[in-house]
Amino acid sequence: MDYFFGEKEYFKNIKKIKYEGPKSDNPLAFKFYDKDKIVAGKTMEEQLKFACAYWHSFCANGTDPFGGATITFPFADKDPMTEAEKKADAAFEFFTKIGTPYYCFHDADVAPSGNNMDEYAKNYIKITDMFLERQKETGIKLLWNTSNMFSEDTYMNGAASNPDFNVVQKCGFKVKTCLDANVKLGASNYVFWGGREGYMNLINTDMQREKDHIGQFFRMARDYGRSIGFKGNFLIEPKPMEPSKHQYDYDAETAIAFIKEQGLENDFKCNIEANHATLAGHTFDHDLQVCADKGMLGSVDANQGDNQNGWDTDEFPYDVYETTRAMLVILRNGGLGLGGLNFDAKRRRNSTDMQDLFISHILGMDTFALGLIMADKILKDGKLDAFVANRYSSFDSGNGKKFEQGKMDLVELAKLGQTAQTKLISGKQEYLESLVNQYLFG
Amino acid sequence: MDYFFGEKEYFKNIKKIKYEGPKSDNPLAFKFYDKDKIVAGKTMEEQLKFACAYWHSFCANGTDPFGGATITFPFADKDPMTEAEKKADAAFEFFTKIGTPYYCFHDADVAPSGNNMDEYAKNYIKITDMFLERQKETGIKLLWNTSNMFSEDTYMNGAASNPDFNVVQKCGFKVKTCLDANVKLGASNYVFWGGREGYMNLINTDMQREKDHIGQFFRMARDYGRSIGFKGNFLIEPKPMEPSKHQYDYDAETAIAFIKEQGLENDFKCNIEANHATLAGHTFDHDLQVCADKGMLGSVDANQGDNQNGWDTDEFPYDVYETTRAMLVILRNGGLGLGGLNFDAKRRRNSTDMQDLFISHILGMDTFALGLIMADKILKDGKLDAFVANRYSSFDSGNGKKFEQGKMDLVELAKLGQTAQTKLISGKQEYLESLVNQYLFG
Amino acid sequence: MDYFFGEKEYFKNIKKIKYEGPKSDNPLAFKFYDKDKIVAGKTMEEQLKFACAYWHSFCANGTDPFGGATITFPFADKDPMTEAEKKADAAFEFFTKIGTPYYCFHDADVAPSGNNMDEYAKNYIKITDMFLERQKETGIKLLWNTSNMFSEDTYMNGAASNPDFNVVQKCGFKVKTCLDANVKLGASNYVFWGGREGYMNLINTDMQREKDHIGQFFRMARDYGRSIGFKGNFLIEPKPMEPSKHQYDYDAETAIAFIKEQGLENDFKCNIEANHATLAGHTFDHDLQVCADKGMLGSVDANQGDNQNGWDTDEFPYDVYETTRAMLVILRNGGLGLGGLNFDAKRRRNSTDMQDLFISHILGMDTFALGLIMADKILKDGKLDAFVANRYSSFDSGNGKKFEQGKMDLVELAKLGQTAQTKLISGKQEYLESLVNQYLFG
Amino acid sequence: MDYFFGEKEYFKNIKKIKYEGPKSDNPLAFKFYDKDKIVAGKTMEEQLKFACAYWHSFCANGTDPFGGATITFPFADKDPMTEAEKKADAAFEFFTKIGTPYYCFHDADVAPSGNNMDEYAKNYIKITDMFLERQKETGIKLLWNTSNMFSEDTYMNGAASNPDFNVVQKCGFKVKTCLDANVKLGASNYVFWGGREGYMNLINTDMQREKDHIGQFFRMARDYGRSIGFKGNFLIEPKPMEPSKHQYDYDAETAIAFIKEQGLENDFKCNIEANHATLAGHTFDHDLQVCADKGMLGSVDANQGDNQNGWDTDEFPYDVYETTRAMLVILRNGGLGLGGLNFDAKRRRNSTDMQDLFISHILGMDTFALGLIMADKILKDGKLDAFVANRYSSFDSGNGKKFEQGKMDLVELAKLGQTAQTKLISGKQEYLESLVNQYLFG
Repeated sequence: MDYFFGEKEYFKNIKKIKYEGPKSDNPLAFKFYDKDKIVAGKTMEEQLKFACAYWHSFCANGTDPFGGATITFPFADKDPMTEAEKKADAAFEFFTKIGTPYYCFHDADVAPSGNNMDEYAKNYIKITDMFLERQKETGIKLLWNTSNMFSEDTYMNGAASNPDFNVVQKCGFKVKTCLDANVKLGASNYVFWGGREGYMNLINTDMQREKDHIGQFFRMARDYGRSIGFKGNFLIEPKPMEPSKHQYDYDAETAIAFIKEQGLENDFKCNIEANHATLAGHTFDHDLQVCADKGMLGSVDANQGDNQNGWDTDEFPYDVYETTRAMLVILRNGGLGLGGLNFDAKRRRNSTDMQDLFISHILGMDTFALGLIMADKILKDGKLDAFVANRYSSFDSGNGKKFEQGKMDLVELAKLGQTAQTKLISGKQEYLESLVNQYLFG
Repeated sequence: MDYFFGEKEYFKNIKKIKYEGPKSDNPLAFKFYDKDKIVAGKTMEEQLKFACAYWHSFCANGTDPFGGATITFPFADKDPMTEAEKKADAAFEFFTKIGTPYYCFHDADVAPSGNNMDEYAKNYIKITDMFLERQKETGIKLLWNTSNMFSEDTYMNGAASNPDFNVVQKCGFKVKTCLDANVKLGASNYVFWGGREGYMNLINTDMQREKDHIGQFFRMARDYGRSIGFKGNFLIEPKPMEPSKHQYDYDAETAIAFIKEQGLENDFKCNIEANHATLAGHTFDHDLQVCADKGMLGSVDANQGDNQNGWDTDEFPYDVYETTRAMLVILRNGGLGLGGLNFDAKRRRNSTDMQDLFISHILGMDTFALGLIMADKILKDGKLDAFVANRYSSFDSGNGKKFEQGKMDLVELAKLGQTAQTKLISGKQEYLESLVNQYLFG
Repeated sequence: MDYFFGEKEYFKNIKKIKYEGPKSDNPLAFKFYDKDKIVAGKTMEEQLKFACAYWHSFCANGTDPFGGATITFPFADKDPMTEAEKKADAAFEFFTKIGTPYYCFHDADVAPSGNNMDEYAKNYIKITDMFLERQKETGIKLLWNTSNMFSEDTYMNGAASNPDFNVVQKCGFKVKTCLDANVKLGASNYVFWGGREGYMNLINTDMQREKDHIGQFFRMARDYGRSIGFKGNFLIEPKPMEPSKHQYDYDAETAIAFIKEQGLENDFKCNIEANHATLAGHTFDHDLQVCADKGMLGSVDANQGDNQNGWDTDEFPYDVYETTRAMLVILRNGGLGLGGLNFDAKRRRNSTDMQDLFISHILGMDTFALGLIMADKILKDGKLDAFVANRYSSFDSGNGKKFEQGKMDLVELAKLGQTAQTKLISGKQEYLESLVNQYLFG
Repeated sequence: MDYFFGEKEYFKNIKKIKYEGPKSDNPLAFKFYDKDKIVAGKTMEEQLKFACAYWHSFCANGTDPFGGATITFPFADKDPMTEAEKKADAAFEFFTKIGTPYYCFHDADVAPSGNNMDEYAKNYIKITDMFLERQKETGIKLLWNTSNMFSEDTYMNGAASNPDFNVVQKCGFKVKTCLDANVKLGASNYVFWGGREGYMNLINTDMQREKDHIGQFFRMARDYGRSIGFKGNFLIEPKPMEPSKHQYDYDAETAIAFIKEQGLENDFKCNIEANHATLAGHTFDHDLQVCADKGMLGSVDANQGDNQNGWDTDEFPYDVYETTRAMLVILRNGGLGLGGLNFDAKRRRNSTDMQDLFISHILGMDTFALGLIMADKILKDGKLDAFVANRYSSFDSGNGKKFEQGKMDLVELAKLGQTAQTKLISGKQEYLESLVNQYLFG
């Protein structure tokens, strides 16, 4: 099998990445991700459902607020549409070589926006038709697509929350176009990330009116999506800040509350990003657990942040503690359903070798593979879950159960409380942390 | 009139604090709070509804994680119950002298907990009977009371969320006792602050089960409260962290979502604390606005935090920008309803002069008085609100209105978007900030 | 007098900005900055020494990590060198109209870098020759210039700290070229901002070797500068993070320590930026005071950050508390010496009206004018400084003085301590905060 | 051998903790710390030099800002001096059973302060005499002692920085007393932690005068210490904030600068605490490396913080990434010299079982043992260090070397730069992170 499409191979000296085990010296091999290995009853590939993010892997060129591009891509071309086509070929070559069974993209990542909405749609349809072909050839599937309504100047005051209805109209056109492509490509989900849905300063903002406009817009998108046969999940992606000082989808709790307030709970779930959760002052597994508890875990943007820098660094994950805790929630949740683990992650600005694109994905995939292996160990062993279950066992029977079932009033509870004997029951945090290190390093 | 009760005057050399105007040299006088002055149609006293917080003003003795007490109170006594009585007299002397028309307290602030629940209740009832007398004598009212279910070791793993049902029973007894006192004292509200309702580590925690227990507990408390004639609001007080790493009532959005999820929306509102909002990464006025937008603004814990220290510093407010922004939300909300501005604030650990207790309240009251004056100026002038209204005017008629009313589908919106002409409309943040400085310093 | 240069007026409908006083309705007028008014013995213009930052005011086009340009400039031109010339004319038109007596720039702001170092130098010399003419025509002076060694990909691993000596060589060429221009233009200072001098990950970094390279580079730059007649200050600008995870010039203390360690204390001082100080967990006035205390206050980058967002927002200052505190340090320091208040600040991305460029500078200048007025009031009144002086008076004579002068050993001190009587002396923070509000709003 | 002293065994059902290996089910056994195992040329015990912190392990009773004690100790006694003696016996029993070869304490941890300075000294001398006996019996050594000058109200405005000279005198008495004990007990180091040396508000503070007083005090302490035969290191412990808003010993850079400014560099080094480094926005290994680079690494307070909570949580370390990075710096530094790894860490407030005291130390010791093993693997393998060395190799010879040696001026460097050819050299962060995971999990 050839790992390229179209006219040429873009990542020329790189072959399909293989599992070589933890002792391998080869930077271009998996050390821990062994896709066909069965863990917790499924192959690693099925459990982890990795997706590659088009915007980081094929668009992000190293630009940051203090500097321009450092990364050049082998598919660069003077003609934007030609470049888009080459980029698509390169992308599928990459998916095939790295072995991510899914991918994700914004409209703006894949095709030039042209000079007007018609050109935008034409370009986008052409490229997504090409994607359809490539999907068929490779078996690679679309985890989700989305519409970029934050990069162009038009959206500087927001997208669906924009104070100017003209801008909201454009959003309507874009989302309709993207939903059409979504159904065409058989995607599992459709994502809304807040982008500039938030405010820079409350002084010039009618917060609730903006939120209601977003809700209205989502209901329209949902109705349209369902009308054309979309059966997957719509997903909201919480983020607390950046680019806005305050983003409306602050965190999982806030996003879920919004979904319910706007009557969207049968169609919408959350796409949880690690680095967004940590920016909000939570841990990654906290936001995952919040969603799991409410049946709202849609999909995951798998990356890692820096808890000491106050912005979204979108690093490829290396921390096995964090992926283990995430995989514990996911395995207990019975997996990711229609979702997957999408690498919303970019190599560092100075990781400029083309190899680094592969190496950084390998890092991320190995780190989640380790997380899966460790989480499975922990669950199989059962000590941790048994500890937690036992901690709450006073509610499993008797008066505790009665309380939990709402069959007791305050007078009865207070009567019990009048003479209740309590003792101090250790939370055993250090014991449990010690146990985790045994699973990880034992 | 004498400003003392019981056997003696506790703040001996301090007379009733009066308004002396901005040029006064007297640290023990108001410079800006002129209680009978009409602002925005009511007296300042009616608009601001200040309350004094028993725990900070008569209990906090300067202890912090790195040191013991620095503050001694003139009502100290070897016998705990005698001290409680003297403290009550001193408190009413202070309320009268400083001129806060309301007060707030936890059970643990006002009476010793005794050796068992019966003693606890007996002590508490005795002191609150005394409060009832003092209220009648002075006209001072109870804004809210609450139950301290976090200080004693018993609650180290939580109160209503405690994994051990025995502890939840004790909470039942305490809350019943406090609700009885609440109705007896004619309080406007009853508050639940999360205390240790949260987790230190997700590893040993069943988050949703804990939250559901809290919800169950609140419904029982609500039903009991209503059954004994409580007509005020139950209030939840959001806080993101501390003492727990993660507190369940993270912020206004999270707390309101919880209220709705648990079916409590007809009885519960939020008590917003400035320093809690800022710890959550929001501004004070953000969390106030979130509540106002949802009809959930119950009351306010008026203090100020330090955005560069990561813990609750509970300072008396001095920042007139912050109080102006808060009062803008409150005035637009039509006031605080049953709520008030409670100084959940303490003088610094090294503000050890007894005068400092008065000076710090004067600071807080003057700062909110300035906020009220400035907010009223801004609203009267109208420029700011007109700017914001105009910013959204494209939704006031035509297709924008149709969109807002839900009378348009995505196909129609997209059709409009296909040819929509947009232009860049400045958000004018610097202009508005400049305007605010003119109101404040002009 | 005409306020334009070269071929045309770029800010056509905007006249020279005048002082109209606090009641003015004109957004294009000063409300508080009255340049010829005497405050603290000098005109406001002399006290504040405002400078305009070329990079923000004439280069920053609204781009942020999530979106492209929103701002277009009237001097845009297809030919980069023609644009540079028009931009220079527009800049001097702006300086003249807004009334900043100084300006500051990076090499990359003012001229295209060309295809090689010779072209870079040629372009840069041409434009700076033009600046020289404009300076003569207008009397506007150069506060400082600097070399941008962080935006181009070449500098992705650092400038003088780059692991590759080839890059350091280029830095040598750039800094020599900039120092030549500095002397030609008669600048008061030459600035080094750390840019990418720091690390993203300690794992691949030899921190001390990098720092020593910077020190070596600075000594070479100093020697060259002095050799060509530069008599001003070299300035380092502390910043804790961004773009690097860790920047070497973390804060004032760290930068001053570096200056001394590298033997640069006779030639280097600090350029303190408000938003950098707050990112480092300090207040603006803290870092100013640290410098003032050590004779190291060189100049000021006058802006304002958002303490709740973890990145450099470079806002125009509006907070009069903050400018008052800053001006207190500066007035007590006897002014800024060779330094000035440079607006390293940009209008918000959605402040897209050309007027907003003026309005935002007006905001900043008015806010510092208010700070100056308030600080002068505080110092003239003297209460605050007297309070502080009195607080330390036990060291002004007797044993305290002996201790301070180093004339006592531990045995003698301990002997005194054995029987010393101490009492609790209140820090009176709330009283002092109250006093400040009287100065500001009284 | 019996593991108790004095009248009884305090930790009755707990035997000496042994190494049982990573598969052990016994919470009261080491899984990774095998004290006699040779790693990097020495036994683990010699490499890690663990110390137990008296204040956390035998004084901290679970109190936090929101609640009282949860932990009771078996040595409680009504008479303070009797309790102190029993506590000392319990402490040495614990040291012996857990196997930490060193311990550390404040004066206030070990003996009651009495009613005056003479009583304080008498009590302290009595207990430290007892320590001397126990040291002889057990071979356990004192890593360092220190004086608590922050808990009592006397020190609310600072210790050596106190505006009141009377307080400084008391500090003199305490430090002299503690230095006498230090020499008596043959300690390796004497520590100063800043405590309340910092400020709550700059408004009432003369920062430089306070710092100079501290410097003066340190010089006096140094001279006295040397005069009585102390040959170890004096150590400063950086911390950025808490209890003060701003602490003077902000971080390693600031503390070292202070040491040099005050002429203390021949006698003072730093005691680096992990959680203090992270509160300052640094990583643990950053502050260690800063010290190592300047010959200023004195000792280590080994704990772990929570990067998402803004206060010092002093957790026992569990993160092997962090301890590996720390041990890399320490091994490359040739070890800790006179210093050690002191567990300035406390079990969580709800870890109330007496076993938890042991378990939490086991967690910390195992985590550092893993860090040592991993760091040794990394250094032995050599890939990482070779990568870094190679990255800077352009400075090892030729013009790069000439530059580094200061034998080149800016004109020569610029000349080279005029024609220098640079290319983009990847920093390979993801590759290196991947490598680390192979060492840890391979």
